[in-house]
Amino acid sequence: MTTAATPLSSLSADDLASRLDDARADYKALQARGLVLDLTRGKPGPDQLDLSEGLLRLPTGHKDSAGVDVRNYGGLEGLTEMRAIFADLLGVDVTNVVCGGNSSLTMMHQVLTALLLKGGPDSPRPWSQEPVVKFVCPVPGYDRHFTMLAEFGIEMLTVPMTPDGPDPVAVRALVADDPTVKGMWIVPTYSNPTGAVCSAEVAAELMAMPTAAPDFRILWDNAYAVHHLTERETKSADALGLAVASGHPNRPIMFASTSKITFAGAGVAALAASTDNKAWYLERLSLASIGPDKVNHLRHVEFFGTADGVRTHMRKHRDLLAPKFEAVDAALSARLGGLGIAEWVAPTGGYFVNLDVMDGTASRVVTLAKEAGIALTPAGAAFPHSKDPNDRNIRLAPSFPALEEVELAMAGVAVCVELAALEKLTS
Amino acid sequence: MTTAATPLSSLSADDLASRLDDARADYKALQARGLVLDLTRGKPGPDQLDLSEGLLRLPTGHKDSAGVDVRNYGGLEGLTEMRAIFADLLGVDVTNVVCGGNSSLTMMHQVLTALLLKGGPDSPRPWSQEPVVKFVCPVPGYDRHFTMLAEFGIEMLTVPMTPDGPDPVAVRALVADDPTVKGMWIVPTYSNPTGAVCSAEVAAELMAMPTAAPDFRILWDNAYAVHHLTERETKSADALGLAVASGHPNRPIMFASTSKITFAGAGVAALAASTDNKAWYLERLSLASIGPDKVNHLRHVEFFGTADGVRTHMRKHRDLLAPKFEAVDAALSARLGGLGIAEWVAPTGGYFVNLDVMDGTASRVVTLAKEAGIALTPAGAAFPHSKDPNDRNIRLAPSFPALEEVELAMAGVAVCVELAALEKLTS
Repeated sequence: MTTAATPLSSLSADDLASRLDDARADYKALQARGLVLDLTRGKPGPDQLDLSEGLLRLPTGHKDSAGVDVRNYGGLEGLTEMRAIFADLLGVDVTNVVCGGNSSLTMMHQVLTALLLKGGPDSPRPWSQEPVVKFVCPVPGYDRHFTMLAEFGIEMLTVPMTPDGPDPVAVRALVADDPTVKGMWIVPTYSNPTGAVCSAEVAAELMAMPTAAPDFRILWDNAYAVHHLTERETKSADALGLAVASGHPNRPIMFASTSKITFAGAGVAALAASTDNKAWYLERLSLASIGPDKVNHLRHVEFFGTADGVRTHMRKHRDLLAPKFEAVDAALSARLGGLGIAEWVAPTGGYFVNLDVMDGTASRVVTLAKEAGIALTPAGAAFPHSKDPNDRNIRLAPSFPALEEVELAMAGVAVCVELAALEKLTS
Repeated sequence: MTTAATPLSSLSADDLASRLDDARADYKALQARGLVLDLTRGKPGPDQLDLSEGLLRLPTGHKDSAGVDVRNYGGLEGLTEMRAIFADLLGVDVTNVVCGGNSSLTMMHQVLTALLLKGGPDSPRPWSQEPVVKFVCPVPGYDRHFTMLAEFGIEMLTVPMTPDGPDPVAVRALVADDPTVKGMWIVPTYSNPTGAVCSAEVAAELMAMPTAAPDFRILWDNAYAVHHLTERETKSADALGLAVASGHPNRPIMFASTSKITFAGAGVAALAASTDNKAWYLERLSLASIGPDKVNHLRHVEFFGTADGVRTHMRKHRDLLAPKFEAVDAALSARLGGLGIAEWVAPTGGYFVNLDVMDGTASRVVTLAKEAGIALTPAGAAFPHSKDPNDRNIRLAPSFPALEEVELAMAGVAVCVELAALEKLTS
């Protein structure tokens, strides 16, 4: 972020009024262009999907290394070779890994519903039989995590997301004495939407902290474990190892998938957990599944070979994505740098840019953008019940549009951010 | 079943003793052969899986007819063309169909857990908040239906399965006055394991009958809708149409899949239901899924083209399966025909032969078979909590072994059935 410009807060009323006129003119010009652009959805672009086109001609065989016919029923925990790839990527033992269908969100939902209807291996009773269940939710966070909790009436207690992960002091204070606080969400690596990376220290605190609930769960959604945007490839904290070391092996349940590695809708999801948690999960799953799509597992195994094959592949994604993220930063810096009305951090991985605008103007920015043909994620989406208490957070998703569209859209967004701030400052 | 032989019950004690000696000698000879055969699992044979080998080179494109990139996220209800194929096969409108992942069992589990945690669109409250929930279970039936209910503590009330479907008088008596009876299972076409086909009349009664529960559900698991073993291709009863006609549109939820059409573990599952039920299901599903594997949908659409493509394909399965089912009938008839110690019906479709042996001997038959190297499904598996009150039911699954293995295994099973009966008659 450049800082050469004068902060708007130090401008005189006249200067602000004149600047507002300029911003209105710019906005009018923006509207006149008749854009139709979309920065709402963190999904891969077609060029990224093309990187995995080879999958469509695989697998060449239909047996795994043990000779099992992958076309038939069975093999609830997934193909061993596929599990080995995730084990390597997640830094866990292959015996702790289960590979499933095309969506880690589905596995999270299975775990949560099973905790509600049955309880975990260490639960006094099914969570649905508790008078109330609460979850710790770092904010801003992933909207689908929150809607899943809302569906089941689970109360959400927010804690701030710091650059090193959820504020461990705030988390500790919530979980220490209240046995109805049963769990928390975390996106540990390149978090959605702030891009924060949970440090080993924070992870260690979360795994070791005392909790009043004996069956406290940390749903560790490592959706972006290998989704680096720079050459410095961050290593995820070893949640399971830290949990075992601190005597809480059942605390974390890790999730990941190839959704943003191969085909977003046709990848392979994985879960990793302690021996007890895994046995518990498989027992629940055995009632609901005839086994995962092992053909798709073999397809991915043949495509990647090993975890290093995945890492090499991710560098091709990086080459396509990094320029789009640079374009976001450039457009925001160019117009908003130094004005003191917006903050953002260029993330080093993941799929989002977290933009904090002047308090009370995020909804207005989204509306202005919409009326100029630029779709943004609704303000507040990154908070429980979609309510941002400060109305300042906007999640930008630059992966899907083409680079020139990102540039156009972000130049427009910058106009809207400034206009909304000036409207507020002059009102 | 031939009837030339003398019923064992009319033999003298001496004749029975002599016959027992013969059967023991035959059993000893059987054991001496050192067989390793398995009739436990209703899964397709490798030759059946080979019929769909073309899938491994599909799809050739990656857009559906509306231009949607099937590789990316989204499209929760599945590819329209795939839904259209199921709509045709199930006799419903395409707007009522949702296509999902690789397992209809998973869709059934989703529906049941959602009913428990949220309740249906017409439920006074979530089922898990009822003091007790009961289900009507036609027996013998599908073991996985029963274990799913057992997982959630749902009480199972059994009714007899007749050749025309569940005994409607017995069902009606259970559901009319007890509001805790919330639903029932049914495999309407070529039922697992009896092969019964629910007639239009029985289906009409089930859809129209008064139920004390306002949110009564019939989980209509049409797993074998097009799995004919003869040229007379039975048409499934129109459950949804009958339900709409009788004013209970939300009563049935239909399930099907291509598991036993293409690849057992890598097919496409479908659900069909009323507008309200479908909207309710999709709303629940939206919390748990980023959309189904649309690449696999397109793969199947390209492979089949239309529902008629499926029908043609199923005749190839029939050609492979029918001889195995004939071998079961032939082996049982050859040794047991007319003895009055076993009953079976050669099914006209599906995957199983239901064998009822002399009361109190099914467990013994399974043990004898096991000790002769022939694995059979545990006695009682087709009943809730695996308890057959008469210990007479055995489910035979001849699809997976090769034809000569089926012949060998069934000749051995016939020996075991006779030996167990003679042991009992002489004890």
